[in-house]
Amino acid sequence: MKEVEEKILACGKVLPGDVLKVDSFLNHQIDVSVMALAGREFHRLFADEGVTKILTIEASGIGIACLTAEQFGVPVLFAKKSRGTNASADFYAAKVASYTHNTTYDVSVSKEFLNAGDRILIIDDFLALGNALRGLIDLAHQAGATVVGCGIVVEKAYQCGGDDLRNAGVRVESLAKIATMDPDAGITFC
Amino acid sequence: MKEVEEKILACGKVLPGDVLKVDSFLNHQIDVSVMALAGREFHRLFADEGVTKILTIEASGIGIACLTAEQFGVPVLFAKKSRGTNASADFYAAKVASYTHNTTYDVSVSKEFLNAGDRILIIDDFLALGNALRGLIDLAHQAGATVVGCGIVVEKAYQCGGDDLRNAGVRVESLAKIATMDPDAGITFC
Repeated sequence: MKEVEEKILACGKVLPGDVLKVDSFLNHQIDVSVMALAGREFHRLFADEGVTKILTIEASGIGIACLTAEQFGVPVLFAKKSRGTNASADFYAAKVASYTHNTTYDVSVSKEFLNAGDRILIIDDFLALGNALRGLIDLAHQAGATVVGCGIVVEKAYQCGGDDLRNAGVRVESLAKIATMDPDAGITFC
Repeated sequence: MKEVEEKILACGKVLPGDVLKVDSFLNHQIDVSVMALAGREFHRLFADEGVTKILTIEASGIGIACLTAEQFGVPVLFAKKSRGTNASADFYAAKVASYTHNTTYDVSVSKEFLNAGDRILIIDDFLALGNALRGLIDLAHQAGATVVGCGIVVEKAYQCGGDDLRNAGVRVESLAKIATMDPDAGITFC
């Protein structure tokens, strides 16, 4: 999506260690006008899928998920992160490996809000190795819900996460797919 | 605001220990249609204040902040919570006492995104003792920014937080102000 790519080129910073800093518009400060366009694009892409709920993960997925849900007229459910396991009679829980923090955390959602009849669109700001997405898909499947696909703002397409999920049959739509990035040479898109 | 009060009466659960459970529409699952109405109401209330940025705190403030920011056409900045201090050359930080968790945490924002010229509207889902709001106001003042006011979805008006802030000269607008709540007798509004 042109507006997202332009925003990344204008405001993203490539740092050493394969870091793309997008805290000026995506995961600390949020450019709501661009993210509202992203929400409309996700709606265009998944409009025919009978989406009943948007699933995301705290914290930086919540804004874009709400702006997307507004287009669909459905609720947002955000999974919570915790150090220890939250699995209980009341919660679905899944483990997620964090590449950034070199650790593992739990994601969980209340069983009350995910149901077998749900058609879930997963929304998140970032996709690299895909671990968070796999955790969210796991939660949906524990409830017997259908995952219609994943809508991602920025995918590091040179990492394996997105294509691994696509090869496993998950529909993944990313608005900006980064082919290469380098502190000196800059960013190119697929 | 009628729609928020009706939602609380229909879906909120009063639990022993002074707990109002609103995870079905506010802080786990988010009813985006009601929160979009809330965002429009915050815009109506603060439309003449020259707001340049919405400040909130992760995680459950982010959704309502984004739906409000959409009305104003300004960015959202969400403060991050951490256990240890995040104060550094790059961040403003403030300490917040948590009544719920009986502990203290730090909130911080990048100095890059708060400026002396900013006119800040603070948005949050809940107000009880007001500690989180005081932390956010502190961050804005460290940057030399002006806080035009606070927009809150649910205020426990029988606790002191809201009126303490009002008495200190802060404009606090709450869409639902709970006068009394009890597991048996239910909820009344101011």
